[in-house]
Amino acid sequence: MQTAEKIHSAQFLAQQLQEITVLLEKQQLERSLVHRGPTTNHELVEAMLQNQHQARLQEKFSSLHPADTASILESLPLDQRKTVWDAIKSDYDGQVLLEVSDAVRQTLISGMAAEEIASVASTLDTDELADLAADLPKRAMLKILRSLNSEERKHLNAILSYQDSQVGALMDFGMITIRTDLTLKAIIAYIRKLGKLPSHTDKLFVVDQNDKVLGILPLQRLLTHLPSQLVAEVMVTDFIRFQVGQEAAEAARAFERYDLISAPVVDSEGKLQGRLCVDNILDFIREKTDEDLLSQAGVGEQEDLFASVWKSARNRWGWLLINIVTAFASTRIIGVFEDIILQLVALASLMPIIAAMGGNTGNQTSMLIIRSLALGQITPANIRRLIKKELTLAILNGIFIGLILGLLSLLLYHDRALSAVMAIAMFINLLVAVIVGLSIPLLRHKFGKDPAVGTSVILTAITDSMGFFIFLGLAQLFLI
Amino acid sequence: MQTAEKIHSAQFLAQQLQEITVLLEKQQLERSLVHRGPTTNHELVEAMLQNQHQARLQEKFSSLHPADTASILESLPLDQRKTVWDAIKSDYDGQVLLEVSDAVRQTLISGMAAEEIASVASTLDTDELADLAADLPKRAMLKILRSLNSEERKHLNAILSYQDSQVGALMDFGMITIRTDLTLKAIIAYIRKLGKLPSHTDKLFVVDQNDKVLGILPLQRLLTHLPSQLVAEVMVTDFIRFQVGQEAAEAARAFERYDLISAPVVDSEGKLQGRLCVDNILDFIREKTDEDLLSQAGVGEQEDLFASVWKSARNRWGWLLINIVTAFASTRIIGVFEDIILQLVALASLMPIIAAMGGNTGNQTSMLIIRSLALGQITPANIRRLIKKELTLAILNGIFIGLILGLLSLLLYHDRALSAVMAIAMFINLLVAVIVGLSIPLLRHKFGKDPAVGTSVILTAITDSMGFFIFLGLAQLFLI
Repeated sequence: MQTAEKIHSAQFLAQQLQEITVLLEKQQLERSLVHRGPTTNHELVEAMLQNQHQARLQEKFSSLHPADTASILESLPLDQRKTVWDAIKSDYDGQVLLEVSDAVRQTLISGMAAEEIASVASTLDTDELADLAADLPKRAMLKILRSLNSEERKHLNAILSYQDSQVGALMDFGMITIRTDLTLKAIIAYIRKLGKLPSHTDKLFVVDQNDKVLGILPLQRLLTHLPSQLVAEVMVTDFIRFQVGQEAAEAARAFERYDLISAPVVDSEGKLQGRLCVDNILDFIREKTDEDLLSQAGVGEQEDLFASVWKSARNRWGWLLINIVTAFASTRIIGVFEDIILQLVALASLMPIIAAMGGNTGNQTSMLIIRSLALGQITPANIRRLIKKELTLAILNGIFIGLILGLLSLLLYHDRALSAVMAIAMFINLLVAVIVGLSIPLLRHKFGKDPAVGTSVILTAITDSMGFFIFLGLAQLFLI
Repeated sequence: MQTAEKIHSAQFLAQQLQEITVLLEKQQLERSLVHRGPTTNHELVEAMLQNQHQARLQEKFSSLHPADTASILESLPLDQRKTVWDAIKSDYDGQVLLEVSDAVRQTLISGMAAEEIASVASTLDTDELADLAADLPKRAMLKILRSLNSEERKHLNAILSYQDSQVGALMDFGMITIRTDLTLKAIIAYIRKLGKLPSHTDKLFVVDQNDKVLGILPLQRLLTHLPSQLVAEVMVTDFIRFQVGQEAAEAARAFERYDLISAPVVDSEGKLQGRLCVDNILDFIREKTDEDLLSQAGVGEQEDLFASVWKSARNRWGWLLINIVTAFASTRIIGVFEDIILQLVALASLMPIIAAMGGNTGNQTSMLIIRSLALGQITPANIRRLIKKELTLAILNGIFIGLILGLLSLLLYHDRALSAVMAIAMFINLLVAVIVGLSIPLLRHKFGKDPAVGTSVILTAITDSMGFFIFLGLAQLFLI
């Protein structure tokens, strides 16, 4: 697809995108010129131009890999995206649909007829079809199901029965299974007859008559051992495999740890159900980290860069509404202490600092805990020592940052008592922040929930309100 | 390494860790019992016990993959980590050192003699050695360099001459090169003679006499084509390759897009310099995302879970100090408006809300922009439309959230003018937030800097101070 001379870089993609946009804009311009021009036969000229443009776009995209086409489609505004998508219809439309993000896929599919979708889908493997299934209209899905044979339908149902976070949802069926009693020579002859191996085939799976996986035969061994040897002699019986129901995140860690390319997926009885490959693991990791980063910033799902404003708004309001509630709740504390502020107005400009520093420190702690939990590095065995370490650190931080803040307030307001309250309030709020930053992820994990979700919102709400309460409360006790 | 019966899960690791901790605690207990016991010959008994424990630990770790050993070492407090590391010395110590995080590696290496380090290093490939080089003491490094042959030294120097973010730093040298004029039969015979392929070999690299890469020969083609065919007939000339100096993040994207397992790395003249494999890409992605997540939360580097409190403190103070400065700076605005607050103290509890909501909205925008920039999806071609869309969204958000906040303040304070100021201030600050959230990453990107670094700190500082300024300024104009 790509020619050898191209070095695949972000610049390359950006340049392609730029050229295609120029093409689209030229097209727009020409069309409007035709309408203003002297010709009476607008329609004919326009049809001719339309064909020309279509040919130009098709030529531009024909040299691109489906993944690059997908990326360019994602970068185009909705109207241009539709124009391009209509123009470039080709055999690998299915691959492009697979590569775009969920949000963008919906914008592409919404303009296609059920027949069209079904014909595109017919070029895909069952595991790829499963990735699209959720986004396809019912009528198209029925058409597709009717065109599948019984084995394909079984595969499709198998994948769809697992959650996105499970290994079963990531597996494919491009595996070659062999028996123990064959010679390597027979295997090589078999492969030659096949003419092609499924992508990412680095090993063949050895199974018995009940499909139970007995071992694996790395291609390497096929090449380095004598052709007369039996599979049983050459196969590896100490291999890594995954359960259909296992967490995909765990499988991803295993692929990293053990440097895997592919591995068998089995059910609870050890029967072969499918294959897990590093390309699907890479996609899974990228999606997961993108989601984590975006959801940390309060963006609900992967958002189409050019989603309609309404759609984007709905995707972001959830988080903003939660924040309105927590912000109002925590600032109610300030309302309670309004008398104090009237007596010492400097408190008004100092209190946000106590709140903000608490949030920052608590976030550092909770992020480390969340990450260590994900790595399986926190257990009943070391949890007490970890808590002790973070608390010691919080005390040290509290003294250090408390002193700095105390000194800075002294410089600003020349009020020793106020500075002392500032320092002590900071010290206490940092302790609170670390205790909360430790507790929320650990408790969520204990009760089987994702420790990352929502931690930062709850944490900030608590450190804000506690910060205001401690600071203004101390001020009431000691300054008035 | 792992037996077939084990399903590799976080639970598996946590359980191993638990068992090892119990073992270590038992050991501690026994040792203290000996000292309190009646025997006079403490030393002999202790030495015997010591040997027993060592044997038990070695047995426990012998069945573990180096990556799992590394993870367990990372999860142990410093004293226990040292005990275990001293006990389990084995042939694959080098692999364990490779797998642990930089911070933990230093704690392991600090207790080893230069000779010991050099002997461990002798089991590693040059590209693996390069990963360790930065953490090794000078004396050990000199010993290691003396033991390398000239080609290995050349390889080591090559890798070390690139930055961590470049493809050159990630490459290895486990590639098999062949010439065009050989038959497939000869290649197969050659591989059989080698007896073993480097891990992740899914293709052989075809080079001319100047080491210029002419094509690749996938193992699949080796198996499916006739043995009598020439490499020149069977090789693929339209293949993906990377430049030594290219950004590693770009290469990672290419591995995802094009589902690669390995690819040649060339210099600017197309000469083969090394090989890039998916396992190194996976490690790179994991490290990069871990770093991004941690640095977003203000943790400087990957932190040893059980680093000394001082070390952890230094790793976190940088961020906290920056935040002290920005927090003080933005709250100075409040100081300017103290008179206003004295006249209408409700402002004190409402102003943090304006500031916080601005920060949240700006963060949503900047995170989407940062992500799209990383994907190469923002170009001069679509930037204007993107800005227009985000600004429209900001206006919509401003009206919606402004109204909600206005209504909530009306319910709390029954003051129409105050509520109107609240709504208008929120509207303006949301616009400011989105403009800043767009500008910072786009400008940083334009000037060739990482758009993610520091964006959130600067953004929050601006939305905080602008929030206070707009709200209190409007209050001064309209409420007093």
